[in-house]
Amino acid sequence: MADMREQFTDLIRSLQNQICAAIEAVDGKEKFIEDRWERADGGGGITRVIANGNVFEKGGVNTSTVHGPVTDAIRTQLKVEGDSFFACGISLVIHPQSPMVPTVHANWRYFELYDKEGKVTDCWFGGGADLTPYVLFEQDAKHFHQCFKDSCDQFDAYFYPKYKQQCDNYFVNHHRNGERRGIGGIFYDYLRPNESMTAQALHNFAKAHGEAFIKAYIPIAERTKDLPFNEQQKHWQLIRRGRYVEFNLIHDRGTIFGLKSNGRTESILMSLPQEVRFEYNYQPQGDEELALQEVLLNPKEWV
Amino acid sequence: MADMREQFTDLIRSLQNQICAAIEAVDGKEKFIEDRWERADGGGGITRVIANGNVFEKGGVNTSTVHGPVTDAIRTQLKVEGDSFFACGISLVIHPQSPMVPTVHANWRYFELYDKEGKVTDCWFGGGADLTPYVLFEQDAKHFHQCFKDSCDQFDAYFYPKYKQQCDNYFVNHHRNGERRGIGGIFYDYLRPNESMTAQALHNFAKAHGEAFIKAYIPIAERTKDLPFNEQQKHWQLIRRGRYVEFNLIHDRGTIFGLKSNGRTESILMSLPQEVRFEYNYQPQGDEELALQEVLLNPKEWV
Repeated sequence: MADMREQFTDLIRSLQNQICAAIEAVDGKEKFIEDRWERADGGGGITRVIANGNVFEKGGVNTSTVHGPVTDAIRTQLKVEGDSFFACGISLVIHPQSPMVPTVHANWRYFELYDKEGKVTDCWFGGGADLTPYVLFEQDAKHFHQCFKDSCDQFDAYFYPKYKQQCDNYFVNHHRNGERRGIGGIFYDYLRPNESMTAQALHNFAKAHGEAFIKAYIPIAERTKDLPFNEQQKHWQLIRRGRYVEFNLIHDRGTIFGLKSNGRTESILMSLPQEVRFEYNYQPQGDEELALQEVLLNPKEWV
Repeated sequence: MADMREQFTDLIRSLQNQICAAIEAVDGKEKFIEDRWERADGGGGITRVIANGNVFEKGGVNTSTVHGPVTDAIRTQLKVEGDSFFACGISLVIHPQSPMVPTVHANWRYFELYDKEGKVTDCWFGGGADLTPYVLFEQDAKHFHQCFKDSCDQFDAYFYPKYKQQCDNYFVNHHRNGERRGIGGIFYDYLRPNESMTAQALHNFAKAHGEAFIKAYIPIAERTKDLPFNEQQKHWQLIRRGRYVEFNLIHDRGTIFGLKSNGRTESILMSLPQEVRFEYNYQPQGDEELALQEVLLNPKEWV
């Protein structure tokens, strides 16, 4: 399976290029800047960030390919045993300027563990994509979920409902009565190759979702980017971005693991929105805010 | 020692009143609003919040007095054994509008543990105060530290250097190369009564710091509140507030413990500043930002 490392690295680089190009095309003004970095213990990454665009206020599309000894931080946080590891993945978060355009996050990754002789003892795939609207447009929520249902259904009709639910169960602000970060999507982790889904099939599964991502998000951004909005909607977006920050810093396993295991802080925290607002005990005001709140507290079946 | 619960509760309520009155007097426009809340498992609190004032953008001065069974969350997070507990404390964070006025935080608390028969098996005091300037005025840093050195020195000349260092070691963004949240102050925890410091002396120690707080912070706020500032200074304040959010949500034991043990979220997160900015890889610009950065990376002896 040595070549799966290469294959997956190729996949994430290719997705990084395609997704950045698609985002830049929607934005029409700003381009991604690129920072290449190296990890002291082995490997490195390519961080691409866009900021202060016409459509996008702040966004990052990062890839990394890292390897090295299994440290205590890795052992504790990932609950794995092994002598050394390899991990590669793409992680992206795009925060638009307008509250009419939803924030989006996606991530696909591959992990291998080795024993002292360098033999692969374990490997798995993980990933997903989820949408965080500020003003809820049902048609967009349906479209986003439909795209990932389609990419799942190519493999197994059982996958979408399962990974949709896992997504609803993962992006939860537990300290806020179970309020979700957004309206979900799909989320899967620790998918190990087996008879029905080989490593190659799991690679293709990630690839299908990566391609679905562009079909899912870009048309929504295009449709909503020029819609007019008012101050109340902008204010609500800033409040909701505060909840995004809370989830990422308090609950997100990847963020916490990255920060505590000496990951590259700036690449990890590119996920935070640029302008954010925290108010004491803010309560949703008006039908629009209440409608969003309702689906965040009680996830819906969109398709 | 049953009356120490009452005594300490009286102390924090009295400090809450004095501090809120002093903050309102500086602000000159807004008053604190008060929310009283109850805890399902026992006890409750008084949350006071000020927002959108002349001088203060957002601040909270909270007291709570809670008790009940020692839950798994308490056992794990506080690393204590016991059947039931009592805890009371005051916690305050004040975020000014102007970048010339520093943010301030303070906290004093008392904890008791009981066995099955209700006998006190352990008790301790904790607390401290620390200053987070955006534009560094050495005279204010010195004044703030001097006030707490004075309140420490009344008890033991050994305390200030020790608790000053503990403060420098606690408010650290470990994921940012050890950058401190601010220029420190004092911090102490798990102070158990002994022959040289009885419970009464430890109560008086907290009381002395509570009174020192007003002498420490109010004159700084008065002196700096009308100073002119420019856009770059405001921008830097918003960036630094981002670091404040990072510390509180990623590293602060009290915040994480509160959120994970079903504390009152709105009272805990009153500590977050209202308007915040996160930029990718922001680097300090100009002498003023670099001067602050320098003392955040390398804490100074101010007195």
